[in-house]
Amino acid sequence: MEEIIITDKFKKLKNELDKISISLIICDKNTYKYCFPLLFSSSKKIPVYVINGGEKSKSIKVLTDIYKIFILNNISRNSIIINLGGGVVTDIGGFAASTFKRGLNYINIPTTLIGMTDAAIGGKTGINFNNLKNYIGTFCMPQKTIIYTDFLETLPEKQLKSGFAEMIKHGIIYDKNYFLELANLKTNLQNDLSENKFYKHIKSSVNIKSEIVKVDFKEENFRKILNFGHTVGHAIESYLIKRNIPHGYCVAAGMICESYISLKKGLLEENTYYLIEKTILKFFNPLKFEVEQINDIAKLTLKDKKNENLEINCVLLSDFEKPVLSEQISIDNIIESLKYYTSLCR
Amino acid sequence: MEEIIITDKFKKLKNELDKISISLIICDKNTYKYCFPLLFSSSKKIPVYVINGGEKSKSIKVLTDIYKIFILNNISRNSIIINLGGGVVTDIGGFAASTFKRGLNYINIPTTLIGMTDAAIGGKTGINFNNLKNYIGTFCMPQKTIIYTDFLETLPEKQLKSGFAEMIKHGIIYDKNYFLELANLKTNLQNDLSENKFYKHIKSSVNIKSEIVKVDFKEENFRKILNFGHTVGHAIESYLIKRNIPHGYCVAAGMICESYISLKKGLLEENTYYLIEKTILKFFNPLKFEVEQINDIAKLTLKDKKNENLEINCVLLSDFEKPVLSEQISIDNIIESLKYYTSLCR
Repeated sequence: MEEIIITDKFKKLKNELDKISISLIICDKNTYKYCFPLLFSSSKKIPVYVINGGEKSKSIKVLTDIYKIFILNNISRNSIIINLGGGVVTDIGGFAASTFKRGLNYINIPTTLIGMTDAAIGGKTGINFNNLKNYIGTFCMPQKTIIYTDFLETLPEKQLKSGFAEMIKHGIIYDKNYFLELANLKTNLQNDLSENKFYKHIKSSVNIKSEIVKVDFKEENFRKILNFGHTVGHAIESYLIKRNIPHGYCVAAGMICESYISLKKGLLEENTYYLIEKTILKFFNPLKFEVEQINDIAKLTLKDKKNENLEINCVLLSDFEKPVLSEQISIDNIIESLKYYTSLCR
Repeated sequence: MEEIIITDKFKKLKNELDKISISLIICDKNTYKYCFPLLFSSSKKIPVYVINGGEKSKSIKVLTDIYKIFILNNISRNSIIINLGGGVVTDIGGFAASTFKRGLNYINIPTTLIGMTDAAIGGKTGINFNNLKNYIGTFCMPQKTIIYTDFLETLPEKQLKSGFAEMIKHGIIYDKNYFLELANLKTNLQNDLSENKFYKHIKSSVNIKSEIVKVDFKEENFRKILNFGHTVGHAIESYLIKRNIPHGYCVAAGMICESYISLKKGLLEENTYYLIEKTILKFFNPLKFEVEQINDIAKLTLKDKKNENLEINCVLLSDFEKPVLSEQISIDNIIESLKYYTSLCR
């Protein structure tokens, strides 16, 4: 398993970094500007490759650019690559590292909340292909993930919220008490952050994700519970791609829809459903889309890469901590849930 | 570990195939013409994707074409892909399968001798990048490899020879008696093939390769012995890429050079060296290149993907069955060996 270090002490972070013989660092424009100078003195002359931020960078084109940079810098099988950034950097940087010369060591330093609690943990790497999210990728554990929580202080509220949705998910599927703690936070996450509550919560999410991944690294069965909210969430994200809605906002919407399907299928009790809905709506206003767009969004769930034999695979819920795998659902179930979801806007 | 089935009985082959729920078959033009119709009746309507033969097909371009075909055919995580062909098809087909949706099951049906004894065994997948051989790839075991030795009967002598070099290598590094058996074969391999000696030898090579891979799947140490002959061999192959010399011919040349370096470093006894040289020259005429080209070929060994920290990594020999790992050699050692090798032409 990967080693995960979580700290809010700058000195500890620097100590960790000093131990590593770094061959190359991959950043995006923001992390190059704000995080890189903090971590690495320019005197060390470590090669850096800077990609554009945003999902568009998770492409074959950027991937081949990274391979070329690896070759130019004589990266060998025992080199160590650092991915310094959010999910985009750790996803594509991890994929490049895992396939170059059949696999190099890489270390993730996530700089966003979604990176710290989800994307940088557990060794899923990937790029998008033909507008299909994470269709090409590998399971390949980073050698280490170093989480420095102070990076969050510079993040806009919207980015924090995106990660927060995945944390709520961890609570729902794995730890009801954790969910209740999150539900009680103030709606302005920046405030909670400055009160340092986040350090503890990030630890909880990292532990939950790590425990799940340890049981089923290659997502043959149990790990699939982490996909709760993501079948409908990914479809919404793909459909609204031009509006550039952060991943977590779409997952928040997806969790409401998939909980609603669970309710309608008689799996989930009404009280539990409404507690989940209320909590998510406390932090996330419903996304706006027209009733006419619902069919198109629902159709996209047919392309979800988790599907088997053309059937929609979706994680449902029978209670907190009780996700239900391999429940077949129909496109009509999806449409019904999206119709309900849009009604929440009014 | 992968399951490996070796048979020369058509009925057994068909029985094996009937057990598999095949989602898609990847072939090259030759195997589509000669092998596919034998194995699959057109009534079954299994989707087939045909790539051009030759190393040039192991490209990002062909890879993305394969991904597109996977999407068009709704390939899901529990689909099974068949790679029907030589090393090119099993390398790129395996890589595509191992990275699509983070990994599908695939089955190799090698149709060449080099495929049966080397490329299709052991889960190395890959494509070339910027003229660098197998620079992008994964370690990903096929679910199964099915070897039907009768496919060899349609192969030209040159193709047989290419695989035969890897078999000689297996003898040198792992089983002296096997080496001696191969050394006694007639120089025209087609004759030996018709006398059915090859079935036994293919089994030996498959067993040797499987045993080595079992010990060290990800080539962290022991598996590297399979790279004997390949440091110089790959450099020659890359340099003479336009002459399209089969891989095994270059490995044969590489084995002479690397044995010669072992001799000159005092690792290998003269008698053993000359037995290896004599045996290889019995089956492989020396490749012709000019003394002036030697420096350029030698320089290419600096780009070998097995190198660490810019030092040339090369497997040497201290005896039969005694390959020596992690022996550092200089570019001058390579140049000296290539000079000696070209002198064998005269």
